[in-house]
Amino acid sequence: MSWRAPIDDILFTLTQVAPGPDGESPMDRDDLAIILDEAGRFAEERIAPLDRASDITGAHWQDGAVTTPPGFREAYADWAAAGWNAVSQPEDFGGSGLPTAVGTATMEMMTSACMALSTLPVLSQGAADALEAHATAEMKALYLPKLISGEWTGTMNLTEPQAGSDLALLRTKAVPAGDGTFRITGSKIFITFGEHDLAANIIHLVLARLPDAPPGVKGISLFLVPKFLPNPDGTPGRPNDVRCAGIEHKLGIKGSPTCTMVFGDAGGAIGWLVGEANKGLACMFTMMNKARLLTGLQGIAIAEKATQMAQAYALERRQGRAAGFDGAAPIAAHPDVARTLARMKALTLSSRAIAYAAAAAIDRAATSPTAEERVRAEMRASLLTPVVKAFCTDAGCEVASSCVQVHGGMGFIEETGAAQLFRDIRIAPIYEGTNAIQAIDLVTRKIGREGGAEVAQVIAEARADLAAAAGLLGGSARRLAEAIDALESATAHLLASTTADTDRLLVASNYLRLFGLVLGGALLARGATQAGDAQAHWPRLARVHAEDLAAEAPALLNQILSPNRRAEDYRALAGLA
Amino acid sequence: MSWRAPIDDILFTLTQVAPGPDGESPMDRDDLAIILDEAGRFAEERIAPLDRASDITGAHWQDGAVTTPPGFREAYADWAAAGWNAVSQPEDFGGSGLPTAVGTATMEMMTSACMALSTLPVLSQGAADALEAHATAEMKALYLPKLISGEWTGTMNLTEPQAGSDLALLRTKAVPAGDGTFRITGSKIFITFGEHDLAANIIHLVLARLPDAPPGVKGISLFLVPKFLPNPDGTPGRPNDVRCAGIEHKLGIKGSPTCTMVFGDAGGAIGWLVGEANKGLACMFTMMNKARLLTGLQGIAIAEKATQMAQAYALERRQGRAAGFDGAAPIAAHPDVARTLARMKALTLSSRAIAYAAAAAIDRAATSPTAEERVRAEMRASLLTPVVKAFCTDAGCEVASSCVQVHGGMGFIEETGAAQLFRDIRIAPIYEGTNAIQAIDLVTRKIGREGGAEVAQVIAEARADLAAAAGLLGGSARRLAEAIDALESATAHLLASTTADTDRLLVASNYLRLFGLVLGGALLARGATQAGDAQAHWPRLARVHAEDLAAEAPALLNQILSPNRRAEDYRALAGLA
Repeated sequence: MSWRAPIDDILFTLTQVAPGPDGESPMDRDDLAIILDEAGRFAEERIAPLDRASDITGAHWQDGAVTTPPGFREAYADWAAAGWNAVSQPEDFGGSGLPTAVGTATMEMMTSACMALSTLPVLSQGAADALEAHATAEMKALYLPKLISGEWTGTMNLTEPQAGSDLALLRTKAVPAGDGTFRITGSKIFITFGEHDLAANIIHLVLARLPDAPPGVKGISLFLVPKFLPNPDGTPGRPNDVRCAGIEHKLGIKGSPTCTMVFGDAGGAIGWLVGEANKGLACMFTMMNKARLLTGLQGIAIAEKATQMAQAYALERRQGRAAGFDGAAPIAAHPDVARTLARMKALTLSSRAIAYAAAAAIDRAATSPTAEERVRAEMRASLLTPVVKAFCTDAGCEVASSCVQVHGGMGFIEETGAAQLFRDIRIAPIYEGTNAIQAIDLVTRKIGREGGAEVAQVIAEARADLAAAAGLLGGSARRLAEAIDALESATAHLLASTTADTDRLLVASNYLRLFGLVLGGALLARGATQAGDAQAHWPRLARVHAEDLAAEAPALLNQILSPNRRAEDYRALAGLA
Repeated sequence: MSWRAPIDDILFTLTQVAPGPDGESPMDRDDLAIILDEAGRFAEERIAPLDRASDITGAHWQDGAVTTPPGFREAYADWAAAGWNAVSQPEDFGGSGLPTAVGTATMEMMTSACMALSTLPVLSQGAADALEAHATAEMKALYLPKLISGEWTGTMNLTEPQAGSDLALLRTKAVPAGDGTFRITGSKIFITFGEHDLAANIIHLVLARLPDAPPGVKGISLFLVPKFLPNPDGTPGRPNDVRCAGIEHKLGIKGSPTCTMVFGDAGGAIGWLVGEANKGLACMFTMMNKARLLTGLQGIAIAEKATQMAQAYALERRQGRAAGFDGAAPIAAHPDVARTLARMKALTLSSRAIAYAAAAAIDRAATSPTAEERVRAEMRASLLTPVVKAFCTDAGCEVASSCVQVHGGMGFIEETGAAQLFRDIRIAPIYEGTNAIQAIDLVTRKIGREGGAEVAQVIAEARADLAAAAGLLGGSARRLAEAIDALESATAHLLASTTADTDRLLVASNYLRLFGLVLGGALLARGATQAGDAQAHWPRLARVHAEDLAAEAPALLNQILSPNRRAEDYRALAGLA
């Protein structure tokens, strides 16, 4: 089956669900529809056909060079030429200047079409965002137009073998050369598209330590290290002292080279400091926030594709008897399969609504008329980012697994394509900060801001959405109401000074899931009230979500509140007794 | 890291948990310990080292011949020569005649060591069981000793492209040749080890239709079709008209060839009827029940290996700060990771207890002194079989996924081995009847026998186990008590004549999970009361299960009882509107 860009759902979510109670469509609806149509067609026709072959062929490394799968070069060139790399990038540097929400939607379709290739612009966008926020005017002028157009690409170089989630352990060094540049030496692993054959230059953003840096994360600085040192006219010049020492053999996204990068084998790679010395972590967070949103989006993109694939198969494949069919019925008619498909759709569409709501908050944080509104919007974006990253990638994994299951034995055969989705998306709960780290971020840093004011606002909006949709939800409204109450109780418990830190950490993942279920259920309810004839599935999705997903809430609340949990049981069973 | 056979847990579960309140150890404890030690050593030393390479190399097909991965031939020969193929097979035909529970335990270790290779004896055992139950004395004498010793292997040929779960759609034909044999023509797909280079002969059991057979499942007969027709002296003679037309490229268990088999290209494969004409389905169920137990066991075997692998990594890998450690702490010390590891263990050990309880029931059904006891035991085995198959394979998938997650980025790299477990086990919820089919079997055919008497007995035993362990469980006892109550209410609801069939089918999977959580939690509680110093982890596991797994029960019960679920929402969202 072939994936079709879900333009109607995306457009409806962007314009009538994500903006919030007082929000507006991110841009003129008709213009938006044209952009989405074009992006969808591009993704369907130019990118999606490469996906299976990219998995089979994979990326290849030889003597430091990386060859990407057949067709990537032409497709990426067309992607950049058509302006899709620059949708929501600043006009000052050649971008289209459209809202983040719009760029998020076009990127979702690119990701459904081929997740492996889509990881390239994700990293480039993150690098461009970091430079825009922290680099000097000169550096911006030199690098940003090319990163934004897609002529050059960008990378994030954080991880080292001994330092994955714990950046305090970084060892890569940067020594001032006396001429304003630095010499970088060290090795980085897991660098997405660290080396490839798709662009004329690669701009590495590298975390490293200056000689006098304090230990830990307060001694990390960010450096720009180009693969080719730009000539004065801006063309790529002589090669820098950077090489790709190999790529990983991975479970999925095999078309996306995951590189080991070695800096300074021949004395030191030439780099430039980005932002202030020893403030590299703050610069990196600029990249990471966007990257976390886009990683969450990967969960949605794969969930959408998996749902379409499973539904097409379930309507075609005939096995067994079911009411309303003579002879063998399509398996979609079996109640368990129908319920599975409905749950897949509810997870997919609620996840999309959460991610687009976060994107809308990012836009409001940049463009709202008053400072107070901008601050509130920034708080909302910051609160939702870990939820988008973790909840939506977990959803992607579940839906991809359900797609395999709906296919039965065919799901285990690689030719079908379901197995590839299952493998590809498995990285998303891991990279850009594991989902457990997202949950800890949510619980320890996000919900407590201003005494929990922003969570309280999310809960109030959810109650308003529920009240407006109560008639459409019928008896199922009760489940969503219980879930909202559960989120309120859980938040109060976690914010209480009497709650131990260990207990917060133990239940952080339960809390994040509860948050995602409540927000997703409320947004589906909001969509149900806004739905026209073309959105007849939204009220159904809202009911299914309430019955089958929001219904998890009481058990999650029990786990969060449990006074009987014994941390020493966990520690002993983990082998730390 | 290297997997170690979990002899202590297996021995304890076999002797003190699975036998039940009035049960006995399946055999002398010291003899059992010796057998398990030997089987564990064989699995660790001779089989486990082949696992990674078998995934990389895979099985290969050329011109009808299948080459298995390096080392399989020697390891399988040693496996058979040491008698491991025959542990619980009847002594009359060369087996060791030990209880099914003991054979189940040795097979678990074989499966942890290399799931791909272990699929071969699973199918051979199923074929031997079907012949023992249904074949003529002559056929038994000719085939059983060789199938049981492992000199020859067996297959189950059910699936055809148009007939997966729905055997009514089978088309393969069998025509009487007039000499007591039949000529079989047709194609079968997904035949595990349908062709290979590990044994001198392959005995195919094939479902096919006689010329005058009624339509549907009442017109299916079972035939024995050897790869080589045996000579009068029992040696393999001339080749039969059977060929392997290809093997599948699969997500996992790549060392296990999944064959397309073509019967009768040159006029008809020679076959013999097994059991009565048109009663093939009943014969096949004999094979399937054992195969379902052993498939559930695959979930446990992979969960055990994944848990060991994750724990070893989490104790070794140091990232971030945690209480009690100077500098970077092992990630096992982070509360979320410790809790994940504890949940993995609770799922693994509770699943094992469920499977071994089912095996013990199979043994009691064969050997109990009175007919009444044997009938009750058969009812218990029949009730637990779908739970073992579905609950334990779902557990295997969850635990394998958690193992990937605990490894972080390394989990996505194939060299680590976590990804292989995640891929290998994904087939288990699909084959031998999808987990949804198991749930439907449980709800529509199993729980209602004798008015639900056997479920009532399971619930009564769970309450007794809980009462005995109440002191050890402390405040967590309440969660298990609620779960047991939930199972009782859910069972009553499903057995009520007022419950609609569609509603039963919709919530069958919820019910099966609830059943598995209650039984698994009760068996861990039983183990906690029996635990000596060497089982100090059992009371902890019972508490963790109650808090983190049994705690799901109220939400599952809500879903089962919900009066607001609308089947038409599911149908419409599935695309059947």
